[in-house]
Amino acid sequence: MSDTSTRPVDYSRVFTQAIDRLHEEGRYRVFIDILRNKGMFPNARCFAGHNGPKPITVWCSNDYLSMGQHPKVIAAMEEALHDVGAGSGGTRNIGGNTHYHIDLEGELADLHGKEGALLFTSGYVSNEATLATLGKLLPGCVIFSDELNHASMIAGIRNSGCEKRIFRHNDLAHLEELLAAEDPNAPKLIAFESVYSMEGDIAPIGAICDLADKYNALTYLDEVHAVGMYGPRGGGISERDAVAHRITIIEGTLGKAFGVMGGYVAADQTIIDVIRSYAPGFIFTTSLSPVLVAGVLASVRHLKSSTAEREAQQASAAMLKGMMTDAGLPVMVGDTHIVPLMVGDPVKAKKISDILLAEYGVYVQPINYPTVPRGTERLRFTPGPTHDEGMMRDLTDALVEIWGRLELRKAA
Amino acid sequence: MSDTSTRPVDYSRVFTQAIDRLHEEGRYRVFIDILRNKGMFPNARCFAGHNGPKPITVWCSNDYLSMGQHPKVIAAMEEALHDVGAGSGGTRNIGGNTHYHIDLEGELADLHGKEGALLFTSGYVSNEATLATLGKLLPGCVIFSDELNHASMIAGIRNSGCEKRIFRHNDLAHLEELLAAEDPNAPKLIAFESVYSMEGDIAPIGAICDLADKYNALTYLDEVHAVGMYGPRGGGISERDAVAHRITIIEGTLGKAFGVMGGYVAADQTIIDVIRSYAPGFIFTTSLSPVLVAGVLASVRHLKSSTAEREAQQASAAMLKGMMTDAGLPVMVGDTHIVPLMVGDPVKAKKISDILLAEYGVYVQPINYPTVPRGTERLRFTPGPTHDEGMMRDLTDALVEIWGRLELRKAA
Repeated sequence: MSDTSTRPVDYSRVFTQAIDRLHEEGRYRVFIDILRNKGMFPNARCFAGHNGPKPITVWCSNDYLSMGQHPKVIAAMEEALHDVGAGSGGTRNIGGNTHYHIDLEGELADLHGKEGALLFTSGYVSNEATLATLGKLLPGCVIFSDELNHASMIAGIRNSGCEKRIFRHNDLAHLEELLAAEDPNAPKLIAFESVYSMEGDIAPIGAICDLADKYNALTYLDEVHAVGMYGPRGGGISERDAVAHRITIIEGTLGKAFGVMGGYVAADQTIIDVIRSYAPGFIFTTSLSPVLVAGVLASVRHLKSSTAEREAQQASAAMLKGMMTDAGLPVMVGDTHIVPLMVGDPVKAKKISDILLAEYGVYVQPINYPTVPRGTERLRFTPGPTHDEGMMRDLTDALVEIWGRLELRKAA
Repeated sequence: MSDTSTRPVDYSRVFTQAIDRLHEEGRYRVFIDILRNKGMFPNARCFAGHNGPKPITVWCSNDYLSMGQHPKVIAAMEEALHDVGAGSGGTRNIGGNTHYHIDLEGELADLHGKEGALLFTSGYVSNEATLATLGKLLPGCVIFSDELNHASMIAGIRNSGCEKRIFRHNDLAHLEELLAAEDPNAPKLIAFESVYSMEGDIAPIGAICDLADKYNALTYLDEVHAVGMYGPRGGGISERDAVAHRITIIEGTLGKAFGVMGGYVAADQTIIDVIRSYAPGFIFTTSLSPVLVAGVLASVRHLKSSTAEREAQQASAAMLKGMMTDAGLPVMVGDTHIVPLMVGDPVKAKKISDILLAEYGVYVQPINYPTVPRGTERLRFTPGPTHDEGMMRDLTDALVEIWGRLELRKAA
């Protein structure tokens, strides 16, 4: 760009070069055009590159428990659609605060044992808006962030204007070293996730809370890959480990295990009130459609009492990990429902994905930078309660064939 | 906060003080708990502070054309709900790219005469993500921003890291003065809105494009309060004025006149591709529920051919403005569908709103800081095709009574 000071900018060239860089790195993204088949998930129809839709099996959905097709969720959404209509018609403050929103915030507060909860249009926005706003309200605050935190947390921390300290992934000693190095009286916030979705590992929440107590820090826990899926009522890892009461703010999504769309935070009432009152990303946006909120209400309520979906999903994940390990495939070690296979190259990861889709009717998206660090490109499988043993056998056999064909590295 | 360096932070006190400040200024927000009645809008039920729901008339919805209850929209959403289920299950890149999304992006590109379009979870996110990403891709870019631009554009410009120049509202001479002061070869972007929703006035789009041509600047036009409502096919003010082809990027919402939820940008294919590939707020979020997208598809298609809703709404707005003006109420001058009444004080604005709701069953939210500047607090009415003459007469009579009771200033 150093030539821009001597001649007029050629905007088109700048943008074309930005796209060219993606092609050169092999990480230009092609979105696969699909429609899921309600009631038959993980079956779906794929449109791209075919004459008419072709049946596929989806292996990379974050609708972890298939709640997006649960009869209670569908019925609740249909009822709301006919009762109140499509959209909310306004921001939460100006005409868009429906009774469904109030009810759902009550359910979510209860799920995490907190005084209050606040809905956002997405998990991304809940992280960005809450972290940015908290930081602005606490002048001089230092935010301690796990190095593998999600992009939305990184955005919120950056937009808070606070100093940031990055600690090595799940490394308590490093976190303590960084905490101890700061002014003991400066405001502090530790931001981390429970389940890291691309690794499939889990944070030591209780031990992090111990450090927070010792250094008088607030804690912010992203449970988007855990809510609905862990804990007796689906309250996440913090419920499973009985430490939810020690976390200042728990953040979750309504678009993964709950099967719909949206995000939220749960905390004490004063914190909910300041976020509600000060966060631009909450204030200046049309609220979630009441149709979505009604669906989530049904989903959260169902998963508070039913453990069948959680148990079936954990069984599926264990079975697939076992099959892949037995076949010598490079499964990444982890104790969650996520099954990542390391490839380590963006072009190869896309090639495997392309072959699976074209030859085997299997859809799994390659995961590349910036979602994961360069050199750690991978395939990420999310077996759920509706993936059966036959599907897993077919998938594993296909992967073994492709691994051989492309001469990829197997497990050590 | 100056005492934080000598003793531990009392977080609770900091947050409580932040809430206290809102109460002291009279701008602590209370959300009104409502449910609209599909098929009978603007009638709704209000829950707060009553024994059971009480019927109200909604006067502050951004569902400007009542498309949120249109039979075609409801039917399309119901069909999608039963065909594919509740949520998309993933980001656009990882399993969440449905055929509905592809179709809607095609419809929106066509609506604005652009090569491509890109969906976001909200209009807020579309502004923030697009402006921040464009700025980052154009090192040294200077962004020229109308002083009344929406909070989401301000957030995007801030997060772009670019230099910002604020021009006085719709002031071409000031804009040119600022453009002429910069290096002629530096990248430039002019960001503005077509309809300013709190003022109800309209930007001189063609004249701004003339300046953009003269100074080799890109243009970014927020049409959220105009799409669906102006132009022969609902393409906004830029369609009405036949200048859409001169705008680099047109941004719109799916949550106001289209009646559902979500946001988008339309532009040439290269720009759509860079935003799609580089914007964190697009990449790292679960895509819009296919149920919503199906509803918007029906809404956009309907409003491309039907002008009845637009005409009825303009007639309603003209009638209400006439009645209020005749009654001596301080209607703000403007040539759009929005009818703002200036109050100029947050406490009085809330008081009028409270009386309207409690005594007259009329719901209009007071608009206060930070949505509008301090000292310009107002009531903002959005008459639509389903507000009839009797409702307008009742509203005007109620306002005249309250204006007298509270001894408020009438029109000059």
